[in-house]
Amino acid sequence: MRGLLPLSRGLSALATSRAARRAGALGFRCGFHGTQSLNKAQPSFGLLFDIDGVLVRGRLPIPAAKKAFSKMVDSKGQFVVPVVFVTNAGNCLRQTKAAQLSHILGVQIEPDQVIMSHSPLRMFKKYHNKCVLVSGQGPVLEIARNLGFNNVISIDMLRESFPLLDMVDHNRRPKLPSSSICNLPKVEAVVLFGEPIRWETNLQLIIDVLLTGGNLSSVHRTQKMPHLPLLACNMDLMWMAEAHSPRFGHGTFLVCLENIYKKITGEDLKYEFLMGKPCELTYHFAEYLIRCQAMDRAWKSPITSLYAIGDNLMTDIYGANLYNRYLEERIARKNPKAVAKIATATGSAAVPEVEPAGNMWESELASPSATSCKSILVCTGVYNPKAEVPPDADQCIKETVFHGHRDFRFDPALVEPGHIVKDVFEAVELIFEQEKFSSQ
Amino acid sequence: MRGLLPLSRGLSALATSRAARRAGALGFRCGFHGTQSLNKAQPSFGLLFDIDGVLVRGRLPIPAAKKAFSKMVDSKGQFVVPVVFVTNAGNCLRQTKAAQLSHILGVQIEPDQVIMSHSPLRMFKKYHNKCVLVSGQGPVLEIARNLGFNNVISIDMLRESFPLLDMVDHNRRPKLPSSSICNLPKVEAVVLFGEPIRWETNLQLIIDVLLTGGNLSSVHRTQKMPHLPLLACNMDLMWMAEAHSPRFGHGTFLVCLENIYKKITGEDLKYEFLMGKPCELTYHFAEYLIRCQAMDRAWKSPITSLYAIGDNLMTDIYGANLYNRYLEERIARKNPKAVAKIATATGSAAVPEVEPAGNMWESELASPSATSCKSILVCTGVYNPKAEVPPDADQCIKETVFHGHRDFRFDPALVEPGHIVKDVFEAVELIFEQEKFSSQ
Repeated sequence: MRGLLPLSRGLSALATSRAARRAGALGFRCGFHGTQSLNKAQPSFGLLFDIDGVLVRGRLPIPAAKKAFSKMVDSKGQFVVPVVFVTNAGNCLRQTKAAQLSHILGVQIEPDQVIMSHSPLRMFKKYHNKCVLVSGQGPVLEIARNLGFNNVISIDMLRESFPLLDMVDHNRRPKLPSSSICNLPKVEAVVLFGEPIRWETNLQLIIDVLLTGGNLSSVHRTQKMPHLPLLACNMDLMWMAEAHSPRFGHGTFLVCLENIYKKITGEDLKYEFLMGKPCELTYHFAEYLIRCQAMDRAWKSPITSLYAIGDNLMTDIYGANLYNRYLEERIARKNPKAVAKIATATGSAAVPEVEPAGNMWESELASPSATSCKSILVCTGVYNPKAEVPPDADQCIKETVFHGHRDFRFDPALVEPGHIVKDVFEAVELIFEQEKFSSQ
Repeated sequence: MRGLLPLSRGLSALATSRAARRAGALGFRCGFHGTQSLNKAQPSFGLLFDIDGVLVRGRLPIPAAKKAFSKMVDSKGQFVVPVVFVTNAGNCLRQTKAAQLSHILGVQIEPDQVIMSHSPLRMFKKYHNKCVLVSGQGPVLEIARNLGFNNVISIDMLRESFPLLDMVDHNRRPKLPSSSICNLPKVEAVVLFGEPIRWETNLQLIIDVLLTGGNLSSVHRTQKMPHLPLLACNMDLMWMAEAHSPRFGHGTFLVCLENIYKKITGEDLKYEFLMGKPCELTYHFAEYLIRCQAMDRAWKSPITSLYAIGDNLMTDIYGANLYNRYLEERIARKNPKAVAKIATATGSAAVPEVEPAGNMWESELASPSATSCKSILVCTGVYNPKAEVPPDADQCIKETVFHGHRDFRFDPALVEPGHIVKDVFEAVELIFEQEKFSSQ
């Protein structure tokens, strides 16, 4: 288990009010209108819950979840600690996910407590007026518009305008000779929300858009040149549903897209931005929403410790540890004496090869009050404690298969959970114990 | 242009009668009941036609095709030269393909003139009584049974028995909690006929079958071990339909499968057998059927020259040249003096990394009478003469992207066509001229 620095810093009143102003600007509404609970213990920590494999498996609730959540609310059903749900799901609106969670957990969950993998796109204003092609399933056009995109094209719209492109399914080929009627604008960027259906169709049309510079009336380019900006949400290779073994996630779709592009062009597919866990950007959002909740409840203690509970080493644990490394480095920059200590603790460089949105988020979000983010792994999802222990301990690192995204480096320190517990109830018990916190 | 050795050998009467006996055993019927045409010039060559990009583009016939075929039949509509169609299509029965061709070309085409990518499976008797999972579209179960498989499972049958496995499409997930009812036998081998529809479903279930050793009731294996035998037909990355740019073929599906398997397990996916062009096995079949036609027509000259007309460098040209190299090496073994000459002409080793069925086909098929197989490239399909000539000739090899299958090496000599012509009519004219042959 990796040591986590017990640093703690105060949150200035200025930062708090800036956070509140920006919440409105980004479309997040601080939805906690609870009464101030001055007489009770006030939390200085917040919780980030993954959903699939932690609270549910497919459509089935995990029994420990309801029990865990009953511990976190008071008699009026109000949360006694700040809680957000950080999911890499991206095929629905956050209000839909909040409603599902309320039903499953028996506790009222607000949309502002939910961060989907696409939530950071709200900040990518420079794309909001460009013509973007969106890929995913569910209400993709509605999701895109809800995030601020004003000029959106779906894969189905491309299929209708260019009926000769999608030829894999014999039964969906045009019955009569037809020509393309191009009444669509030129695509200027591609946004991948989550795993679509009919992968052959999405893969073909996305490749066509990339190889034609967004104009499907023209032939594939054969010369090397940068492709259109590509933004992808959710890199989970697999996730845990009801079945015994993990199921394909959006990361598996990306494996296909990356390798087809590489095979056809000989070049690497490049992402302008990757988002969703384990990207830092997603954790900045989570920290920000937690701060927002604390502010709304007028809790006076700054939220200094975050706990991220998840089932996936490459997503939840890697992401929490990466963000923790960011927080430590941030403090170290302010306190140069701590640098040597942190360098020893964190090992190799923490930064993924794809940088999250440059410093764009820094100008949009207020500075974090959190100084640490601790990772807790549960065994109710994709993580299989038996499978992860190789028979021969010497083979441990060598034999580990990296299920993270192509653009993230395997770093043993980042996939090491702070704690491993049976389920989410044990996780909450552990946190309350560590924080000496009681909801009673 | 590469030099081809003008070698010629006679076909023994013994080999001919052995071929005839084996034709029956393999399910091929010599369907040419034409009258002996002793008074006319008899061909000593045969033609292998690719279909997509040579005779048709999608549903549209290529105009030159009808004209070319009218040149190859007499006034009774009988072929004056042996002709076979060698297609990597694998999603229909060969009788269906023969009927389509008859309609398009205005000439009667027999099923025995058609070689689909899956046709060699007829010889893989050791799999015929095993329980095989088949992937593809169209009448896959019928195709499999027609090839001799007696115990076949489709992807749809797996989905029905294991409803919790195919989870990508939210709308196809089971609505109510359900458990698996396993009434299917254990899968013992996987056969990939051609590109399926709903790639996410086929990819997920094939990966599940490979990682569970064919028993979907069990969890994924986490230890390294060889996976079930995997047989794949048709490796075409892309093919040319009506659209301006090439469309995904089965090879693109295989790129996805190979890379998902590699990402999840860290190991390479291994094919027990690969078939369809450019594999030698497919050309042995073609040569054999051509010999069969000549025999049936009682043409006395042995068929010594083959001409393969296609639009795809990595499939048609690579395959024809690879088979030509085999024919040359075969002769060289019989005539050691020729070895040095051939080694100079052919350059590096010709054998793909995946060997076709060991020597199984040698025991099933009679020895070829052909001594050469010349490749002719047409410009009506996937080959784009403009795109293939890089602006800087020095970059030629370095800049070429290899669109062949992962298990085939790029070999510049093998993708060099014997001739490049505009279309199939020009190809037939060229061949007749070279052979000093006239259909009149």
